[in-house]
Amino acid sequence: MTDGHIEAVYRVRSREDALHGRIEALLLEQTVELPRSALRTAFVKERLVGKVLAMEKLGPDDFRVTLAQPELATGDDPAQLLNVLFGNCSLQPDVLLEDVRLTPALESMLGGPRFGILGIRELVGVQGRALTASVLKPIGLTNQETASLCGALARCGIDIVKDDHGHADHSFGPFGERVRLCLRATDEAAQETGRPTLYVPNLTGSPATVLEQVRVAREAGVKAVMVSPMLIGLPFLVDIASDLGMPILAHPAFGGAQRISPAALLGRLFPLFGADAVIYPNYGGRFSYSREECGAIAAALRSPPGAIRPAFPVPAGGMKVETLREVLGFYGKDTILLVGGSLLDAPDPATLAERGRQFVEAAAAFPYRT
Amino acid sequence: MTDGHIEAVYRVRSREDALHGRIEALLLEQTVELPRSALRTAFVKERLVGKVLAMEKLGPDDFRVTLAQPELATGDDPAQLLNVLFGNCSLQPDVLLEDVRLTPALESMLGGPRFGILGIRELVGVQGRALTASVLKPIGLTNQETASLCGALARCGIDIVKDDHGHADHSFGPFGERVRLCLRATDEAAQETGRPTLYVPNLTGSPATVLEQVRVAREAGVKAVMVSPMLIGLPFLVDIASDLGMPILAHPAFGGAQRISPAALLGRLFPLFGADAVIYPNYGGRFSYSREECGAIAAALRSPPGAIRPAFPVPAGGMKVETLREVLGFYGKDTILLVGGSLLDAPDPATLAERGRQFVEAAAAFPYRT
Repeated sequence: MTDGHIEAVYRVRSREDALHGRIEALLLEQTVELPRSALRTAFVKERLVGKVLAMEKLGPDDFRVTLAQPELATGDDPAQLLNVLFGNCSLQPDVLLEDVRLTPALESMLGGPRFGILGIRELVGVQGRALTASVLKPIGLTNQETASLCGALARCGIDIVKDDHGHADHSFGPFGERVRLCLRATDEAAQETGRPTLYVPNLTGSPATVLEQVRVAREAGVKAVMVSPMLIGLPFLVDIASDLGMPILAHPAFGGAQRISPAALLGRLFPLFGADAVIYPNYGGRFSYSREECGAIAAALRSPPGAIRPAFPVPAGGMKVETLREVLGFYGKDTILLVGGSLLDAPDPATLAERGRQFVEAAAAFPYRT
Repeated sequence: MTDGHIEAVYRVRSREDALHGRIEALLLEQTVELPRSALRTAFVKERLVGKVLAMEKLGPDDFRVTLAQPELATGDDPAQLLNVLFGNCSLQPDVLLEDVRLTPALESMLGGPRFGILGIRELVGVQGRALTASVLKPIGLTNQETASLCGALARCGIDIVKDDHGHADHSFGPFGERVRLCLRATDEAAQETGRPTLYVPNLTGSPATVLEQVRVAREAGVKAVMVSPMLIGLPFLVDIASDLGMPILAHPAFGGAQRISPAALLGRLFPLFGADAVIYPNYGGRFSYSREECGAIAAALRSPPGAIRPAFPVPAGGMKVETLREVLGFYGKDTILLVGGSLLDAPDPATLAERGRQFVEAAAAFPYRT
C-alpha cells in the first residue's frame, strides 16, 4: 500500500507499443481527466495525479496494471470512490477492474460488515457448520401463500428463509403484510421445531421507498434484511449499513454486466460498503461463474483487509440437494448455502418437506475440516 | 405494446437448436425465477409469466428476442422495474438488453424529464441553435481557482458551465463554497457580457449526502444540477427528479460497462427516470461509441415515448473547437455541445478566451436546417 493512495488493479487490452500511452491516459482519466500538460497548479500535479505501481504482461495485448490513486481524490465519499475506481473507464471496453485495495481511512469511512460471519452465526445460533438458506419464490403468490411457504421451509429446520430479490411492495403482496405474516410463520415453526429460522425480507426501490421499508421492517421485528446494491445504488448501502443495526444480505442483481471482476465487485466492494453476506451464482448452475471465480469471491469475503470483518459467501443458483456434498467440500463451514428452485419445484408439500430435511441434514452431517 | 405488459428487446447469443430453451429460461428468470412446472397458482401462471413477442435471426448464433413482461411484476417501482428488465440476466453474458418499451402507467410513475429540451432552452434563453457547455476541471483546484475558471468560461459567452462529475465535497474544495463562488462568478460575467451562463454543480454521494447537497444548492440559488445516475443509483434519480424542481444533467460514469446498449440505458432509461439532458461520449473522441450509436442515443432522447418530454443529447469527450462544424451538422440544433479538455489545455488565459469565443461563435453561426 502506498501511503495515502488507493490501489486499483486493471486488466488492460492494448498493443504493447501503445501501452505506455494507454496507461497514462487511464491514470489521468480517473481523477483529473486532463492531459498532464493541461494541469496548472502544483497542488493538482503533486496531490491529485496518481502513479503506475506495477505492470505485468499476461499474454499478447493483455496486461495487468496496478495504479496508485490519491486517497484525496475520493473526497472520503463512497460514490466518488467508485468514480475514481471505475467511473469514466467503465465506458472504455479495453479496461476491466480486477482488484481494489483501499486505505485504512476509507475502509473505516465505509465501515464494512457490521455483523459479518460472527454476527450472523450469533443471530442464528449456529456454530461449526455451514448455514442453510432458502428463498420465497415466485413473486405473484399472495402474502398468505408466501408465508405458508415460509413456514414450510422453516419447519424443515432451514436457518435462513429470505424473500426473492424480486419482492417489492407489489399490489398482490404488499411489503408490510408480507413481513408480518412471514415473521409469524417462522415464529410458529420455531415453537414446533425448537430451533429458530431467520426471515429476511427484501428491501427495494428508490431511497425514499427503501427507508420506509426499513422503518416498517424494524417495527415488525425483522432481524436481517436483503438488498440488491447495484439496483438501489452501491453508495446507498453505506447509508443503510450505518443506521440499520442488523445484518445485510446483498444480492448481485443488475451487477453482473459490470466489467468488474466478480471477486472485486461482490467479494471486495459489496462487503466494504456494508454487506454482511453476499449472494452470488455458484459454479455449475444456470449462471456463468467458474469454480475458480467462485473460490476467489469466497476467499475475498472471508479475508477482508485491515480491521474489516469477514463476511459470509452465499453461493446460490441451481444447486441441488443431491450434490451438496461436493459444494460443502469446496466451501467448508463458513458458508451459507442457498437452495431455492430445487426445493420449490417439489411436486407436493411432503416432497418439499423431505428435500428440505435432506438439505438441513446434509449441512449438519458433513465432516467439515476445522 | 401489449396491454399491461412492458417490452424488453434482448440480443441473445445461442445455438439455434438451443434457442427455444434459452428464451424460455430468460422469460422466466426475470420474473418468477422458477421453471413453469414449479409454478403452483393460476394467478402466477396467468399474471406473472410473460411471453415471447418476436424473434429475429441476425446471424449465426445471434438473435434479437422481444419479450413482453407483465407490468404487474414491476410493482410500480423503479428498482424492481430494472430488475425485471436486467436483474439476474445481467449475470448471464449471452444476453444484452437492447431496447425497452414501458407502459403509459410506468412512464407516468417514472415521470421522465420535468424540463427537457424546451425547459432548458427557456432557462438559458436560447432558441434556434445548439447550446454550448464546458466543464470545470481538474478536481484539485481550490474553489477560488475553480470559480475563476468558471468566470473565464462564462465571459466567453458559453451557455452552461458545469462541475466535473468527479467534484464531490472534497477537503480541498468543499461543495457549498464552490457552489456559491461559481454562482457569483457567472453572475459577474453576465453583468459584463449581458448574457447569462448557467452554472451546474455536481451532486454525488450516498442519498443522505446528495439530499444535503440539494438543500445547499437550492439555498444558494442553483438552477440546474448534474448527477451520475449509475454511481448514485438509477432509482434515486426518480426521487431527485420528483422533488427537485430544476433540470438535471445526467453523466454516464460507471454506466458504460453495463451490457445494456447505450441507446437503451442513456437514451431511454436515463430520461425516463428523470434526466433532462444526458451526457455521453461522442464518436471520434477518447471513448468507444460509434457515430451510429451516438445517433441512436440522440434519436432516443429527442423522440421519447408517449407523453414523455424530449431530452437534450449532450455529446462530450475529446471534441475540438476546430471540428465543431462536422458535429453540428451531425446533431443539428437540439443539442448541447460539451467541450472541456480542448479549451482547458489552452496554454494561457488569452488562448482559452479566444478558443471559448470560437466555440460560442461556431454554435451561433452554424447554418442549422430548421
